[in-house]
Amino acid sequence: MPDFGIVIHGGAGAISKDKMTPELERAFHEGLVEALVAGYEILARGGRSLDAVQRAVTVMEDLPLFNAGKGAVFTHAGTNEMDAAIMDGRTLQAGAVAGVRHVKNPIILARLVMERLPHVLLARDGAEAFAAAQGMELMPDEYFFTERRWQQLLEAKAKEGESGGSKHPNEHPERDQQHGTVGAVALDQSGDLAAATSTGGMSNCRYGRIGDSPIIGAGTYANNRTCAVSTTGHGEFFMRAVTAYDISAMMEYLGLSLNQATDKAVYGRLTELGGSGGLIAMDRMGNIALPFNTPGMYRGYYLPGGNPETAIYKI
Amino acid sequence: MPDFGIVIHGGAGAISKDKMTPELERAFHEGLVEALVAGYEILARGGRSLDAVQRAVTVMEDLPLFNAGKGAVFTHAGTNEMDAAIMDGRTLQAGAVAGVRHVKNPIILARLVMERLPHVLLARDGAEAFAAAQGMELMPDEYFFTERRWQQLLEAKAKEGESGGSKHPNEHPERDQQHGTVGAVALDQSGDLAAATSTGGMSNCRYGRIGDSPIIGAGTYANNRTCAVSTTGHGEFFMRAVTAYDISAMMEYLGLSLNQATDKAVYGRLTELGGSGGLIAMDRMGNIALPFNTPGMYRGYYLPGGNPETAIYKI
Repeated sequence: MPDFGIVIHGGAGAISKDKMTPELERAFHEGLVEALVAGYEILARGGRSLDAVQRAVTVMEDLPLFNAGKGAVFTHAGTNEMDAAIMDGRTLQAGAVAGVRHVKNPIILARLVMERLPHVLLARDGAEAFAAAQGMELMPDEYFFTERRWQQLLEAKAKEGESGGSKHPNEHPERDQQHGTVGAVALDQSGDLAAATSTGGMSNCRYGRIGDSPIIGAGTYANNRTCAVSTTGHGEFFMRAVTAYDISAMMEYLGLSLNQATDKAVYGRLTELGGSGGLIAMDRMGNIALPFNTPGMYRGYYLPGGNPETAIYKI
Repeated sequence: MPDFGIVIHGGAGAISKDKMTPELERAFHEGLVEALVAGYEILARGGRSLDAVQRAVTVMEDLPLFNAGKGAVFTHAGTNEMDAAIMDGRTLQAGAVAGVRHVKNPIILARLVMERLPHVLLARDGAEAFAAAQGMELMPDEYFFTERRWQQLLEAKAKEGESGGSKHPNEHPERDQQHGTVGAVALDQSGDLAAATSTGGMSNCRYGRIGDSPIIGAGTYANNRTCAVSTTGHGEFFMRAVTAYDISAMMEYLGLSLNQATDKAVYGRLTELGGSGGLIAMDRMGNIALPFNTPGMYRGYYLPGGNPETAIYKI
């Protein structure tokens, strides 16, 4: 078993091969490798898993490719609203933010919530006020503008128009493709687990919807007794199934292995509820799991003695 | 075993006897009885547990006594910011809102989220926009003004000033007393469980903090396979321990009884983490539990063949 390592994801869904070019595919692999290397280097020199997952997620937040940070999708109103969470498996401390609009790296803000406030979750303008009070740089709206995401919003709105408006304004045919998330889980040489998740939410979304990413136990969870988990997909199902904590509970209470617990969570519970998505997980022995019930999930891992490994489709 | 019934709480904490008058104590008991009777009547005539918990919580939201709805505490900025969640144990559907400021009954809005949107959680202005789109009446700020809560804010601010400002602006000596919540769990004659929680948050709070009440799995959870749970207390600890779902997991995976699971959650996990508070729970057999590790918890239950029973302190 490796005594440390990192696993990441960059979102799961119906990644359509007709919209994927060789250049874009290469860019995704390169982005995943960059994030893996940045996190792994911290672990290899004896650093903390918390720092490694934060660093890996920060790299993905800064790339326009992923639906988090710079690459965040647009809401119906044309704004970018981002959520993030981080959890320390040693102390069970956690920090999260929801609906921030101008924070370059929401995962860094989540870490500050964890370390400097007695709270777990801050939302929207209040979270941005805390960011400003902490001296974090707030970016203008333009920083988060990417042509690809803007076109996705226009397409989603056009489809809404064609269908004469849907009963549920936040449901649209392409929703799987536009639920992106990034996340990382890691085990460090001290035996501490950590998990981090960051997302730009759901394209064309209304009403200040918060998904599972910033919800401890749903989209993000870490506990040294069991495992660290970060999820991606149709968040509401992960919230209703309390997926990330459920994996920990099945390991602790039923004695399941990481693979057994994550398989049951994704191919059992989540699929039975009708949810789509995937997750990454790592246990305190260094076992890893990357299950998903969608056609693809941007993902990768980097363990001692190996190279950064990345994949997009089922292999 | 009763084949239906309802359990409620109106907050847990260091309920100080020196601030409690016989009149106020009687008003609390009367308020709890009113909520119990309103919910029980729905169950007795064969209605749904979802409707019963919503009705009981609505009664408590409308009373100025409890920290929810009309009686919500004030944030540091002098606003009222309320959270609520509801969950259906039969379908595992859930709805929740966080940080709403003008909605008379946040629990009704949470129910509308569950039934009319594909989402679980809406926040702040977005949640209020959905309320308006649903034709819900939005109340002016004045509706939520209560002299008792305003004085609590002034006292908290004065104490902050005396201590020269605290490192954590949201921590203050009286915090236990000012974390109120209301909640209800019920089992109906069809065997369906439901849970509902509503809160005015934390007095003198900053930065758009969201507590455990609207978080499915932390402050609110219902599952016909196991139990329904609503918590109250220092929310961050319930979020980190994923308390409400943990009780369900211990029943399902370890085969614990409702009492064993709730005792372990409150007197074990929560207390070990350093958290204070309590919860109410009911299982599909009609067993009930009302554990708390604070000096008091406003609480009550109403089961067939009995009367509405209420209590405040340990008995």
